[in-house]
Amino acid sequence: MKEKLTIVKVGGAVVEDQTQLEQLLKDFAAISGSKILVHGGGRRATKVAERLGVETLMVGGRRITDAAMLEVVTMVYGGLVNKNLVARLQACGVNAIGLTGADGDVIRSHRRPVKDGVDFGFVGDVNKANGDLLSDFIEKKLVPVIAPLTHDGQGNILNTNADTMASETAKALANRYDVTLIYSFEKKGVLRQADDDDSVIPVITRADFERYKADGTISGGMLPKIENALAAVEAGVGRVIITLATALDGQHGTVISR
Amino acid sequence: MKEKLTIVKVGGAVVEDQTQLEQLLKDFAAISGSKILVHGGGRRATKVAERLGVETLMVGGRRITDAAMLEVVTMVYGGLVNKNLVARLQACGVNAIGLTGADGDVIRSHRRPVKDGVDFGFVGDVNKANGDLLSDFIEKKLVPVIAPLTHDGQGNILNTNADTMASETAKALANRYDVTLIYSFEKKGVLRQADDDDSVIPVITRADFERYKADGTISGGMLPKIENALAAVEAGVGRVIITLATALDGQHGTVISR
Repeated sequence: MKEKLTIVKVGGAVVEDQTQLEQLLKDFAAISGSKILVHGGGRRATKVAERLGVETLMVGGRRITDAAMLEVVTMVYGGLVNKNLVARLQACGVNAIGLTGADGDVIRSHRRPVKDGVDFGFVGDVNKANGDLLSDFIEKKLVPVIAPLTHDGQGNILNTNADTMASETAKALANRYDVTLIYSFEKKGVLRQADDDDSVIPVITRADFERYKADGTISGGMLPKIENALAAVEAGVGRVIITLATALDGQHGTVISR
Repeated sequence: MKEKLTIVKVGGAVVEDQTQLEQLLKDFAAISGSKILVHGGGRRATKVAERLGVETLMVGGRRITDAAMLEVVTMVYGGLVNKNLVARLQACGVNAIGLTGADGDVIRSHRRPVKDGVDFGFVGDVNKANGDLLSDFIEKKLVPVIAPLTHDGQGNILNTNADTMASETAKALANRYDVTLIYSFEKKGVLRQADDDDSVIPVITRADFERYKADGTISGGMLPKIENALAAVEAGVGRVIITLATALDGQHGTVISR
Protein backbone atom coordinates (compact mmCIF):
# COMPACT_ATOMS: atom_id res chain seq x y z
CA MET A 1 0.00 0.00 0.00
CA LYS A 2 1.26 3.43 -0.92
CA GLU A 3 1.92 6.03 1.75
CA LYS A 4 -0.69 8.76 2.11
CA LEU A 5 0.09 12.24 0.75
CA THR A 6 -2.23 15.24 1.08
CA ILE A 7 -1.80 18.21 -1.24
CA VAL A 8 -3.75 21.32 -0.26
CA LYS A 9 -4.26 24.22 -2.62
CA VAL A 10 -5.26 27.46 -0.93
CA GLY A 11 -6.40 30.50 -2.87
CA GLY A 12 -5.59 34.15 -2.59
CA ALA A 13 -8.79 35.06 -0.76
CA VAL A 14 -7.98 32.76 2.17
CA VAL A 15 -4.32 33.87 2.29
CA GLU A 16 -5.52 37.47 2.59
CA ASP A 17 -7.94 36.94 5.47
CA GLN A 18 -6.06 36.67 8.77
CA THR A 19 -8.82 34.70 10.56
CA GLN A 20 -9.27 32.19 7.74
CA LEU A 21 -5.50 31.93 7.28
CA GLU A 22 -4.91 31.15 10.98
CA GLN A 23 -7.51 28.40 10.82
CA LEU A 24 -6.09 27.01 7.60
CA LEU A 25 -2.54 26.89 8.98
CA LYS A 26 -3.77 25.12 12.12
CA ASP A 27 -5.78 22.60 10.09
CA PHE A 28 -2.93 22.06 7.65
CA ALA A 29 -0.49 21.51 10.52
CA ALA A 30 -2.91 18.93 11.96
CA ILE A 31 -3.04 16.80 8.77
CA SER A 32 -1.23 13.57 9.58
CA GLY A 33 1.36 12.12 7.24
CA SER A 34 3.13 13.74 4.31
CA LYS A 35 1.75 16.94 2.85
CA ILE A 36 2.29 19.81 0.42
CA LEU A 37 0.75 23.29 0.37
CA VAL A 38 0.22 25.12 -2.93
CA HIS A 39 -0.88 28.73 -2.64
CA GLY A 40 -2.18 31.60 -4.74
CA GLY A 41 -1.94 35.27 -3.92
CA GLY A 42 -3.68 37.11 -6.76
CA ARG A 43 -5.58 39.58 -4.56
CA ARG A 44 -2.39 40.64 -2.80
CA ALA A 45 -0.60 40.96 -6.14
CA THR A 46 -3.38 43.22 -7.42
CA LYS A 47 -3.07 45.44 -4.33
CA VAL A 48 0.72 45.71 -4.54
CA ALA A 49 0.50 46.36 -8.30
CA GLU A 50 -1.93 49.19 -7.64
CA ARG A 51 0.41 50.76 -5.06
CA LEU A 52 3.25 50.50 -7.59
CA GLY A 53 1.15 52.00 -10.38
CA VAL A 54 1.12 48.77 -12.37
CA GLU A 55 -2.22 48.15 -14.06
CA THR A 56 -3.95 44.78 -13.56
CA LEU A 57 -5.52 43.32 -16.70
CA MET A 58 -7.45 40.06 -16.58
CA VAL A 59 -8.74 38.00 -19.52
CA GLY A 60 -11.08 35.09 -18.71
CA GLY A 61 -10.12 35.33 -15.04
CA ARG A 62 -6.40 35.07 -15.84
CA ARG A 63 -3.82 37.79 -15.29
CA ILE A 64 -2.02 39.39 -18.23
CA THR A 65 1.62 39.40 -17.08
CA ASP A 66 3.87 41.98 -18.71
CA ALA A 67 7.41 42.63 -17.42
CA ALA A 68 6.20 45.02 -14.69
CA MET A 69 3.48 42.61 -13.51
CA LEU A 70 5.99 39.73 -13.56
CA GLU A 71 8.11 41.67 -11.05
CA VAL A 72 5.03 42.17 -8.88
CA VAL A 73 3.97 38.51 -8.85
CA THR A 74 7.57 37.36 -8.33
CA MET A 75 7.75 39.63 -5.28
CA VAL A 76 4.31 38.84 -3.91
CA TYR A 77 3.98 35.10 -4.63
CA GLY A 78 7.64 34.09 -4.28
CA GLY A 79 8.50 36.49 -1.47
CA LEU A 80 5.72 38.03 0.61
CA VAL A 81 3.10 35.28 0.58
CA ASN A 82 5.40 32.26 0.35
CA LYS A 83 7.90 33.28 3.02
CA ASN A 84 5.23 34.36 5.49
CA LEU A 85 3.42 31.04 5.04
CA VAL A 86 6.70 29.18 5.56
CA ALA A 87 7.61 31.15 8.70
CA ARG A 88 4.14 30.69 10.17
CA LEU A 89 4.10 26.97 9.43
CA GLN A 90 7.52 26.66 11.07
CA ALA A 91 5.95 28.22 14.16
CA CYS A 92 3.26 25.47 13.99
CA GLY A 93 5.96 22.79 14.04
CA VAL A 94 5.77 22.10 10.28
CA ASN A 95 9.19 21.98 8.61
CA ALA A 96 8.03 23.97 5.59
CA ILE A 97 10.25 24.78 2.62
CA GLY A 98 9.11 27.40 0.12
CA LEU A 99 9.54 26.59 -3.54
CA THR A 100 8.76 28.09 -6.90
CA GLY A 101 9.04 25.87 -9.96
CA ALA A 102 12.54 27.30 -10.54
CA ASP A 103 13.86 26.05 -7.19
CA GLY A 104 15.54 22.71 -7.74
CA ASP A 105 13.93 22.78 -11.22
CA VAL A 106 10.80 21.46 -9.50
CA ILE A 107 8.26 22.62 -12.10
CA ARG A 108 9.29 23.70 -15.56
CA SER A 109 6.92 25.37 -18.00
CA HIS A 110 6.82 27.03 -21.40
CA ARG A 111 5.49 30.44 -22.19
CA ARG A 112 1.84 30.29 -23.22
CA PRO A 113 1.50 30.88 -26.97
CA VAL A 114 -0.61 33.79 -28.21
CA LYS A 115 -4.13 32.45 -28.91
CA ASP A 116 -7.24 34.18 -30.27
CA GLY A 117 -5.23 37.39 -30.27
CA VAL A 118 -4.57 37.21 -26.50
CA ASP A 119 -0.94 37.39 -25.35
CA PHE A 120 -0.81 36.55 -21.65
CA GLY A 121 2.82 37.65 -21.53
CA PHE A 122 5.07 35.96 -18.97
CA VAL A 123 2.61 33.18 -18.19
CA GLY A 124 3.75 29.57 -18.12
CA ASP A 125 1.92 26.38 -19.00
CA VAL A 126 3.39 23.52 -16.99
CA ASN A 127 5.46 20.85 -18.74
CA LYS A 128 5.90 18.52 -15.78
CA ALA A 129 6.57 18.53 -12.04
CA ASN A 130 9.75 16.88 -10.72
CA GLY A 131 8.39 14.04 -8.59
CA ASP A 132 11.88 12.75 -7.69
CA LEU A 133 12.99 15.89 -5.88
CA LEU A 134 9.60 16.46 -4.24
CA SER A 135 9.58 12.92 -2.84
CA ASP A 136 13.17 13.38 -1.63
CA PHE A 137 11.97 16.40 0.34
CA ILE A 138 8.94 14.49 1.65
CA GLU A 139 11.15 11.61 2.80
CA LYS A 140 13.22 14.15 4.74
CA LYS A 141 10.00 15.29 6.47
CA LEU A 142 10.16 18.62 4.70
CA VAL A 143 6.80 20.11 3.69
CA PRO A 144 6.95 21.90 0.32
CA VAL A 145 5.05 25.20 0.16
CA ILE A 146 4.70 25.95 -3.53
CA ALA A 147 4.20 29.44 -5.00
CA PRO A 148 2.43 29.84 -8.37
CA LEU A 149 5.60 30.62 -10.32
CA THR A 150 7.56 28.36 -12.67
CA HIS A 151 10.54 28.83 -14.96
CA ASP A 152 11.24 28.10 -18.61
CA GLY A 153 14.81 26.79 -18.20
CA GLN A 154 16.09 29.82 -20.09
CA GLY A 155 16.32 32.17 -17.16
CA ASN A 156 12.75 33.42 -17.05
CA ILE A 157 10.27 33.18 -14.20
CA LEU A 158 6.73 32.60 -15.48
CA ASN A 159 3.44 33.34 -13.72
CA THR A 160 1.52 30.07 -13.43
CA ASN A 161 -1.97 29.08 -12.34
CA ALA A 162 -1.89 27.69 -8.81
CA ASP A 163 -4.68 25.14 -9.45
CA THR A 164 -2.67 23.70 -12.34
CA MET A 165 0.50 23.60 -10.24
CA ALA A 166 -1.39 21.68 -7.55
CA SER A 167 -2.81 19.14 -10.01
CA GLU A 168 0.53 18.72 -11.83
CA THR A 169 2.27 18.17 -8.50
CA ALA A 170 -0.38 15.61 -7.53
CA LYS A 171 -0.01 13.81 -10.87
CA ALA A 172 3.79 13.70 -10.61
CA LEU A 173 3.53 12.02 -7.19
CA ALA A 174 0.58 9.70 -7.89
CA ASN A 175 2.74 6.68 -8.74
CA ARG A 176 4.59 6.95 -5.40
CA TYR A 177 1.82 8.03 -3.02
CA ASP A 178 -1.90 7.61 -2.43
CA VAL A 179 -2.64 11.28 -3.17
CA THR A 180 -5.57 13.31 -1.91
CA LEU A 181 -5.68 16.73 -3.57
CA ILE A 182 -7.77 19.30 -1.72
CA TYR A 183 -8.77 22.55 -3.42
CA SER A 184 -9.76 24.80 -0.55
CA PHE A 185 -11.76 27.93 -1.25
CA GLU A 186 -14.47 30.17 0.18
CA LYS A 187 -17.48 27.87 -0.52
CA LYS A 188 -18.46 24.55 1.03
CA GLY A 189 -17.95 22.78 -2.28
CA VAL A 190 -19.25 22.87 -5.85
CA LEU A 191 -22.76 24.27 -5.52
CA ARG A 192 -25.84 23.20 -7.46
CA GLN A 193 -27.27 26.68 -6.91
CA ALA A 194 -24.79 29.55 -6.66
CA ASP A 195 -26.93 31.40 -4.10
CA ASP A 196 -27.47 28.37 -1.84
CA ASP A 197 -24.37 27.59 0.23
CA ASP A 198 -25.83 24.26 1.29
CA SER A 199 -26.47 22.91 -2.21
CA VAL A 200 -23.10 21.15 -2.31
CA ILE A 201 -22.82 18.44 -4.99
CA PRO A 202 -21.24 15.51 -3.08
CA VAL A 203 -19.60 13.68 -6.01
CA ILE A 204 -18.71 14.67 -9.56
CA THR A 205 -17.48 12.19 -12.19
CA ARG A 206 -16.48 13.04 -15.78
CA ALA A 207 -20.02 12.15 -16.96
CA ASP A 208 -21.61 14.35 -14.27
CA PHE A 209 -19.30 17.20 -15.22
CA GLU A 210 -20.24 17.08 -18.91
CA ARG A 211 -23.92 17.12 -17.95
CA TYR A 212 -23.55 20.01 -15.44
CA LYS A 213 -21.52 21.94 -17.98
CA ALA A 214 -24.14 21.43 -20.69
CA ASP A 215 -27.06 22.47 -18.49
CA GLY A 216 -25.22 25.46 -17.02
CA THR A 217 -25.16 24.18 -13.39
CA ILE A 218 -21.37 24.61 -13.42
CA SER A 219 -19.87 27.64 -15.15
CA GLY A 220 -17.20 30.34 -14.99
CA GLY A 221 -14.07 29.88 -12.88
CA MET A 222 -15.31 26.52 -11.60
CA LEU A 223 -14.97 24.94 -15.06
CA PRO A 224 -11.13 24.97 -15.31
CA LYS A 225 -10.91 23.98 -11.62
CA ILE A 226 -12.98 20.82 -12.17
CA GLU A 227 -11.28 20.14 -15.51
CA ASN A 228 -7.92 20.19 -13.64
CA ALA A 229 -9.35 17.94 -10.94
CA LEU A 230 -10.70 15.39 -13.41
CA ALA A 231 -7.39 15.34 -15.30
CA ALA A 232 -5.68 14.62 -11.97
CA VAL A 233 -7.89 11.67 -11.00
CA GLU A 234 -7.72 10.31 -14.56
CA ALA A 235 -3.89 10.42 -14.22
CA GLY A 236 -3.91 8.35 -11.02
CA VAL A 237 -4.49 10.83 -8.20
CA GLY A 238 -6.64 9.07 -5.57
CA ARG A 239 -9.23 11.77 -5.12
CA VAL A 240 -9.74 15.50 -5.45
CA ILE A 241 -11.84 17.33 -2.89
CA ILE A 242 -13.20 20.83 -3.39
CA THR A 243 -14.09 22.30 -0.01
CA LEU A 244 -14.01 25.18 2.44
CA ALA A 245 -10.57 26.32 3.60
CA THR A 246 -11.80 25.63 7.13
CA ALA A 247 -12.81 22.03 6.38
CA LEU A 248 -9.62 20.24 5.41
CA ASP A 249 -10.44 16.98 7.16
CA GLY A 250 -11.55 15.35 3.90
CA GLN A 251 -15.06 14.72 5.29
CA HIS A 252 -16.77 17.64 3.55
CA GLY A 253 -17.08 19.26 0.17
CA THR A 254 -17.34 17.87 -3.32
CA VAL A 255 -15.33 14.78 -4.23
CA ILE A 256 -14.13 14.58 -7.82
CA SER A 257 -13.60 10.95 -8.72
CA ARG A 258 -13.22 8.57 -11.64
CA MET B 1 40.61 15.14 3.03
CA LYS B 2 37.40 17.11 3.16
CA GLU B 3 35.51 17.92 -0.02
CA LYS B 4 35.85 21.47 -1.32
CA LEU B 5 32.93 23.89 -0.83
CA THR B 6 32.86 27.46 -2.14
CA ILE B 7 30.45 29.98 -0.63
CA VAL B 8 30.11 33.23 -2.56
CA LYS B 9 28.45 36.29 -1.09
CA VAL B 10 27.38 38.86 -3.64
CA GLY B 11 26.15 42.31 -2.66
CA GLY B 12 23.26 44.41 -3.82
CA ALA B 13 25.35 46.61 -6.10
CA VAL B 14 26.43 43.66 -8.23
CA VAL B 15 22.93 42.14 -8.32
CA GLU B 16 21.64 45.49 -9.64
CA ASP B 17 24.12 45.86 -12.50
CA GLN B 18 23.13 43.62 -15.43
CA THR B 19 26.66 43.43 -16.89
CA GLN B 20 28.31 42.61 -13.56
CA LEU B 21 25.53 40.16 -12.70
CA GLU B 22 25.90 38.28 -16.01
CA GLN B 23 29.63 37.93 -15.38
CA LEU B 24 29.09 36.84 -11.80
CA LEU B 25 26.55 34.17 -12.76
CA LYS B 26 28.91 32.84 -15.43
CA ASP B 27 31.86 32.78 -13.02
CA PHE B 28 29.75 31.23 -10.27
CA ALA B 29 28.49 28.54 -12.67
CA ALA B 30 32.12 27.80 -13.61
CA ILE B 31 33.24 27.14 -10.02
CA SER B 32 33.95 23.43 -9.77
CA GLY B 33 32.63 21.33 -6.91
CA SER B 34 29.96 22.17 -4.37
CA LYS B 35 28.89 25.76 -3.91
CA ILE B 36 26.44 28.14 -2.27
CA LEU B 37 25.45 31.68 -3.25
CA VAL B 38 24.40 34.22 -0.61
CA HIS B 39 23.00 37.48 -1.94
CA GLY B 40 22.04 40.95 -0.78
CA GLY B 41 19.62 43.28 -2.50
CA GLY B 42 19.53 46.46 -0.42
CA ARG B 43 19.66 48.88 -3.33
CA ARG B 44 16.72 47.20 -5.00
CA ALA B 45 14.79 47.19 -1.71
CA THR B 46 15.40 50.93 -1.33
CA LYS B 47 14.06 51.55 -4.85
CA VAL B 48 10.94 49.43 -4.36
CA ALA B 49 10.35 51.01 -0.94
CA GLU B 50 10.51 54.45 -2.55
CA ARG B 51 7.95 53.47 -5.20
CA LEU B 52 5.68 52.15 -2.43
CA GLY B 53 6.11 55.29 -0.35
CA VAL B 54 7.98 53.45 2.42
CA GLU B 55 10.78 55.53 3.88
CA THR B 56 14.28 54.02 4.11
CA LEU B 57 16.11 54.74 7.37
CA MET B 58 19.67 53.53 7.92
CA VAL B 59 21.68 53.58 11.16
CA GLY B 60 25.37 52.71 10.91
CA GLY B 61 24.83 51.33 7.41
CA ARG B 62 22.05 49.01 8.61
CA ARG B 63 18.40 49.25 7.60
CA ILE B 64 15.73 50.04 10.18
CA THR B 65 13.03 47.47 9.41
CA ASP B 66 9.51 48.38 10.53
CA ALA B 67 6.49 46.30 9.45
CA ALA B 68 6.18 48.10 6.09
CA MET B 69 9.90 47.74 5.34
CA LEU B 70 9.77 44.07 6.35
CA GLU B 71 7.16 43.51 3.65
CA VAL B 72 9.42 45.25 1.15
CA VAL B 73 12.54 43.22 1.96
CA THR B 74 10.54 39.98 2.10
CA MET B 75 9.25 40.75 -1.41
CA VAL B 76 12.54 41.96 -2.84
CA TYR B 77 15.07 39.62 -1.20
CA GLY B 78 12.92 36.48 -0.95
CA GLY B 79 11.01 36.99 -4.21
CA LEU B 80 12.39 39.33 -6.84
CA VAL B 81 16.13 38.96 -6.35
CA ASN B 82 16.23 35.36 -5.12
CA LYS B 83 13.90 33.85 -7.72
CA ASN B 84 15.52 35.68 -10.62
CA LEU B 85 18.97 34.49 -9.50
CA VAL B 86 17.64 30.93 -9.22
CA ALA B 87 15.99 31.00 -12.68
CA ARG B 88 19.10 32.47 -14.28
CA LEU B 89 21.40 29.94 -12.60
CA GLN B 90 19.09 27.15 -13.79
CA ALA B 91 19.63 28.49 -17.32
CA CYS B 92 23.42 28.21 -16.70
CA GLY B 93 23.03 24.52 -15.79
CA VAL B 94 23.25 25.11 -12.03
CA ASN B 95 20.52 23.30 -10.07
CA ALA B 96 19.88 26.26 -7.79
CA ILE B 97 17.38 26.24 -4.93
CA GLY B 98 16.39 29.52 -3.32
CA LEU B 99 16.22 29.61 0.45
CA THR B 100 15.57 32.05 3.24
CA GLY B 101 16.45 31.05 6.76
CA ALA B 102 12.81 30.04 7.30
CA ASP B 103 12.88 27.43 4.52
CA GLY B 104 13.62 24.06 6.07
CA ASP B 105 14.50 26.03 9.24
CA VAL B 106 17.90 26.58 7.63
CA ILE B 107 18.90 29.70 9.60
CA ARG B 108 17.10 30.74 12.75
CA SER B 109 17.65 34.09 14.42
CA HIS B 110 16.38 36.23 17.25
CA ARG B 111 15.17 39.79 17.02
CA ARG B 112 17.99 42.23 17.70
CA PRO B 113 17.52 43.85 21.12
CA VAL B 114 17.22 47.64 21.36
CA LYS B 115 20.70 49.03 22.05
CA ASP B 116 21.91 52.59 22.62
CA GLY B 117 18.34 53.70 21.97
CA VAL B 118 18.28 52.19 18.47
CA ASP B 119 15.48 49.75 17.65
CA PHE B 120 16.27 48.10 14.31
CA GLY B 121 12.79 46.58 14.26
CA PHE B 122 12.34 43.28 12.45
CA VAL B 123 16.06 42.58 12.19
CA GLY B 124 17.47 39.19 13.16
CA ASP B 125 20.79 38.23 14.66
CA VAL B 126 21.62 34.68 13.62
CA ASN B 127 21.54 31.87 16.18
CA LYS B 128 22.94 29.11 13.99
CA ALA B 129 22.77 27.75 10.46
CA ASN B 130 21.46 24.19 9.90
CA GLY B 131 24.50 22.41 8.45
CA ASP B 132 22.69 19.05 8.24
CA LEU B 133 20.04 20.17 5.79
CA LEU B 134 22.46 22.30 3.76
CA SER B 135 24.84 19.37 3.33
CA ASP B 136 21.88 17.12 2.36
CA PHE B 137 21.11 19.59 -0.42
CA ILE B 138 24.76 19.76 -1.46
CA GLU B 139 24.97 15.95 -1.62
CA LYS B 140 21.97 16.00 -3.96
CA LYS B 141 23.89 18.43 -6.21
CA LEU B 142 21.52 21.23 -5.34
CA VAL B 143 23.08 24.69 -5.08
CA PRO B 144 21.52 26.78 -2.29
CA VAL B 145 20.91 30.45 -3.17
CA ILE B 146 20.34 32.17 0.16
CA ALA B 147 18.42 35.43 0.62
CA PRO B 148 19.21 37.71 3.60
CA LEU B 149 16.10 36.79 5.57
CA THR B 150 15.79 34.50 8.59
CA HIS B 151 12.97 33.56 10.96
CA ASP B 152 12.53 33.53 14.72
CA GLY B 153 10.66 30.22 14.99
CA GLN B 154 7.58 32.13 16.15
CA GLY B 155 6.22 32.96 12.74
CA ASN B 156 8.20 36.11 11.98
CA ILE B 157 10.52 36.74 9.07
CA LEU B 158 13.50 38.87 10.12
CA ASN B 159 15.74 41.01 7.92
CA THR B 160 19.30 39.75 8.32
CA ASN B 161 22.71 40.92 7.22
CA ALA B 162 23.86 38.93 4.18
CA ASP B 163 27.54 38.98 5.23
CA THR B 164 26.62 37.41 8.55
CA MET B 165 24.44 34.81 6.85
CA ALA B 166 27.35 33.88 4.59
CA SER B 167 29.81 33.54 7.47
CA GLU B 168 27.32 31.61 9.64
CA THR B 169 26.64 29.25 6.74
CA ALA B 170 30.39 28.79 6.22
CA LYS B 171 30.91 28.10 9.93
CA ALA B 172 28.07 25.55 10.06
CA LEU B 173 29.65 23.60 7.19
CA ALA B 174 33.32 23.94 8.18
CA ASN B 175 33.46 20.58 9.98
CA ARG B 176 32.18 18.77 6.88
CA TYR B 177 33.87 20.68 4.05
CA ASP B 178 37.06 22.57 3.24
CA VAL B 179 35.26 25.89 2.93
CA THR B 180 36.37 28.91 0.93
CA LEU B 181 34.15 31.91 1.64
CA ILE B 182 34.33 34.65 -0.99
CA TYR B 183 32.91 38.10 -0.28
CA SER B 184 32.53 39.64 -3.71
CA PHE B 185 32.04 43.37 -4.01
CA GLU B 186 32.87 46.36 -6.20
CA LYS B 187 36.57 46.74 -5.22
CA LYS B 188 39.55 44.51 -5.93
CA GLY B 189 39.96 43.73 -2.24
CA VAL B 190 40.56 45.52 1.04
CA LEU B 191 42.40 48.68 0.05
CA ARG B 192 45.27 50.31 1.93
CA GLN B 193 44.24 53.64 0.38
CA ALA B 194 40.55 54.09 -0.41
CA ASP B 195 41.31 56.15 -3.53
CA ASP B 196 43.86 53.71 -4.96
CA ASP B 197 42.16 50.66 -6.47
CA ASP B 198 45.47 48.85 -6.75
CA SER B 199 46.48 49.17 -3.09
CA VAL B 200 44.95 45.77 -2.24
CA ILE B 201 46.18 44.30 1.07
CA PRO B 202 46.97 40.67 0.12
CA VAL B 203 46.56 39.03 3.55
CA ILE B 204 44.93 40.12 6.80
CA THR B 205 45.24 38.20 10.07
CA ARG B 206 43.60 39.11 13.40
CA ALA B 207 46.76 40.98 14.45
CA ASP B 208 46.88 42.90 11.15
CA PHE B 209 43.21 43.80 11.54
CA GLU B 210 43.65 45.24 15.02
CA ARG B 211 46.57 47.34 13.76
CA TYR B 212 44.71 48.57 10.65
CA LYS B 213 41.67 49.37 12.76
CA ALA B 214 43.75 51.34 15.27
CA ASP B 215 45.56 53.40 12.63
CA GLY B 216 42.40 54.02 10.60
CA THR B 217 43.53 52.14 7.46
CA ILE B 218 40.34 50.08 7.71
CA SER B 219 37.10 51.81 8.71
CA GLY B 220 33.36 52.07 8.10
CA GLY B 221 31.46 49.22 6.47
CA MET B 222 34.65 47.21 5.99
CA LEU B 223 35.02 46.72 9.76
CA PRO B 224 32.04 44.38 10.32
CA LYS B 225 32.86 42.59 7.05
CA ILE B 226 36.37 41.71 8.22
CA GLU B 227 35.15 40.98 11.75
CA ASN B 228 32.72 38.45 10.25
CA ALA B 229 35.50 37.00 8.10
CA LEU B 230 37.90 36.60 11.04
CA ALA B 231 35.19 34.97 13.14
CA ALA B 232 34.65 32.51 10.28
CA VAL B 233 38.31 31.50 9.92
CA GLU B 234 38.67 31.30 13.69
CA ALA B 235 35.70 28.87 13.67
CA GLY B 236 37.33 26.58 11.15
CA VAL B 237 36.49 28.04 7.73
CA GLY B 238 39.49 27.41 5.46
CA ARG B 239 39.86 30.90 4.11
CA VAL B 240 37.86 34.03 3.41
CA ILE B 241 38.60 36.05 0.30
CA ILE B 242 37.40 39.62 -0.25
CA THR B 243 37.50 40.39 -3.96
CA LEU B 244 35.87 41.82 -7.08
CA ALA B 245 32.61 40.20 -8.18
CA THR B 246 34.34 39.56 -11.50
CA ALA B 247 37.31 37.75 -9.93
CA LEU B 248 35.87 34.68 -8.26
CA ASP B 249 38.71 32.35 -9.18
CA GLY B 250 40.29 32.70 -5.73
CA GLN B 251 43.51 34.10 -7.21
CA HIS B 252 42.81 37.75 -6.44
CA GLY B 253 41.73 39.99 -3.61
CA THR B 254 42.46 40.01 0.09
CA VAL B 255 42.76 36.71 1.94
CA ILE B 256 41.60 36.72 5.55
CA SER B 257 43.38 33.96 7.40
CA ARG B 258 44.30 32.74 10.87
